[in-house]
Amino acid sequence: MAPAGEWALLEKIRRKIPRRLQEPYRLRDDAGLMRIQGAHWVFAADMLVEGVDFRYGHAKPEEVGHKALGINLSDLAAMGAKPVAYLITLGMPRRFSTAWVTRFYDGLNRLARRYRMTCLGGDLSEAKQWTASITILGRCENAPIARQGARPGDILYVTGSLGGSLRRHHLGFQPRVEQGLYLSSKMKPHAMIDISDGLVQDLGHMLRQSKAGAALRLDQIPVSKDAFQMAGGDPAKALRRALTDGEDFELLFAIPVRQQKQLETGWQKRFPRVPLRAIGHILKGRGIQWMDRQKHVKNPAAGRTGYEHFR
Amino acid sequence: MAPAGEWALLEKIRRKIPRRLQEPYRLRDDAGLMRIQGAHWVFAADMLVEGVDFRYGHAKPEEVGHKALGINLSDLAAMGAKPVAYLITLGMPRRFSTAWVTRFYDGLNRLARRYRMTCLGGDLSEAKQWTASITILGRCENAPIARQGARPGDILYVTGSLGGSLRRHHLGFQPRVEQGLYLSSKMKPHAMIDISDGLVQDLGHMLRQSKAGAALRLDQIPVSKDAFQMAGGDPAKALRRALTDGEDFELLFAIPVRQQKQLETGWQKRFPRVPLRAIGHILKGRGIQWMDRQKHVKNPAAGRTGYEHFR
Repeated sequence: MAPAGEWALLEKIRRKIPRRLQEPYRLRDDAGLMRIQGAHWVFAADMLVEGVDFRYGHAKPEEVGHKALGINLSDLAAMGAKPVAYLITLGMPRRFSTAWVTRFYDGLNRLARRYRMTCLGGDLSEAKQWTASITILGRCENAPIARQGARPGDILYVTGSLGGSLRRHHLGFQPRVEQGLYLSSKMKPHAMIDISDGLVQDLGHMLRQSKAGAALRLDQIPVSKDAFQMAGGDPAKALRRALTDGEDFELLFAIPVRQQKQLETGWQKRFPRVPLRAIGHILKGRGIQWMDRQKHVKNPAAGRTGYEHFR
Repeated sequence: MAPAGEWALLEKIRRKIPRRLQEPYRLRDDAGLMRIQGAHWVFAADMLVEGVDFRYGHAKPEEVGHKALGINLSDLAAMGAKPVAYLITLGMPRRFSTAWVTRFYDGLNRLARRYRMTCLGGDLSEAKQWTASITILGRCENAPIARQGARPGDILYVTGSLGGSLRRHHLGFQPRVEQGLYLSSKMKPHAMIDISDGLVQDLGHMLRQSKAGAALRLDQIPVSKDAFQMAGGDPAKALRRALTDGEDFELLFAIPVRQQKQLETGWQKRFPRVPLRAIGHILKGRGIQWMDRQKHVKNPAAGRTGYEHFR
């Protein structure tokens, strides 16, 4: 994951990647889809680099292993895919202790076991920075949920709380796999995305690809305790963090208004400990309308663009 | 790919990787297998790191892109799998020019197009060394060929010529995809492997996993011109290079003696420009018996162990 915007090369490269769009293969959103005899298989790849995504000596190795697989699981969760298998390549510096490597694997394996995933292969190399690249493979029983497809009138929901992820959450988050599966099988959201670049930016992805706009209710954004902490208790700064920090790995989805009641009742029963909040709705047109207690306000996050990375 | 032997950590890690062997998923040799409704899907992952696998300013960027995908294709070739798709993650240093990156992709794309492969996704990150990690996906119409399965009496064949790869070949080699497909569909070798660690070491893998030994005819080893060049014209040194240098990415396979004639005739017709050489045969027992014109000799490569890398 590249903290970019800085880096125009990314766009150039993105255009270099051949995207043959014939069935049965498709590139969609963060992931590739392959249809094999009626079943939808989903592929995604993410890379974690020391000094970019974590610092040696600061992050616990178990957390780094957990995050390496977790960011991939979050991609699957957003499509409502069931995790199946992964492949891992590691670039390893000699200065990393055996204990570190062992603990990295403990963190990764714990998460892999939780979803009964199979390791289908890998490769090791020496490298100057710890580099973990994971390709993940999942299966959708139903049609995979996309970023596109949000329709005017849909209610926007977000799971968990947002902002301040850098403090702890980005290393310890629980990818919303069960929630993604539940939503795709029971609720059929029109569109879904995981929040890695920050709410505003990821909502922007969803809106652009859905050719729609949205009203965002700022008074309903679930601001995390860590966002408040990092903002020194300043509510306006904390809200900006919740809107733009990124690496929340929560789910953002759009659902028809008629399903609202069923969703909220079902969710409460199924995931009583995972917050779910309606934060706005989809509009005709383009862009985001910022609302605070029914009043139009200015974009409180103007100028802060959050993370950008290549998919 | 790690120049190891130096690196005991590798073994430790290998044991950490969970290998759940229930159907429909299997880890075999370099690759993972997945059976979906009768079809065999094959996965492999390989990583290329600047300063380990190539040097910036020395290797042409097109060659690095070619090699990044080529080493993965070679894994598929050895199983007789048809390339289908890949995912790529890149760690990119800022000091790499846009032209370099563009040309890297040109090399990679040329090879991908040749096999009509689809890119199913990827990720980019900043990094200190250029790091390209590719997961490749292939399909076997027939049962995938394994390293194990060689039987006493089988003839050992090798494609191309061996040794001195570092001079040029390791960056420009043509993965033996068509040959692997031909062999698996028409000849059904008992065992097959691609030579990445060096003939002696990769033959060793095949023999150990087949619980068999072999007689190796040193006078029949196809020694490359580059091996001679790098050996200063010394035939003994050139032979040692052919036996141990590695990164040849040629196919080594064991085939029943009754198919020998059919293979040689068919190969000549189909691949007139790709050398094929019978270099020995499989024996009961263990280890390699070294032969030179029907006489037993000592291991000429003793002490040189070639490349080792984690799979």
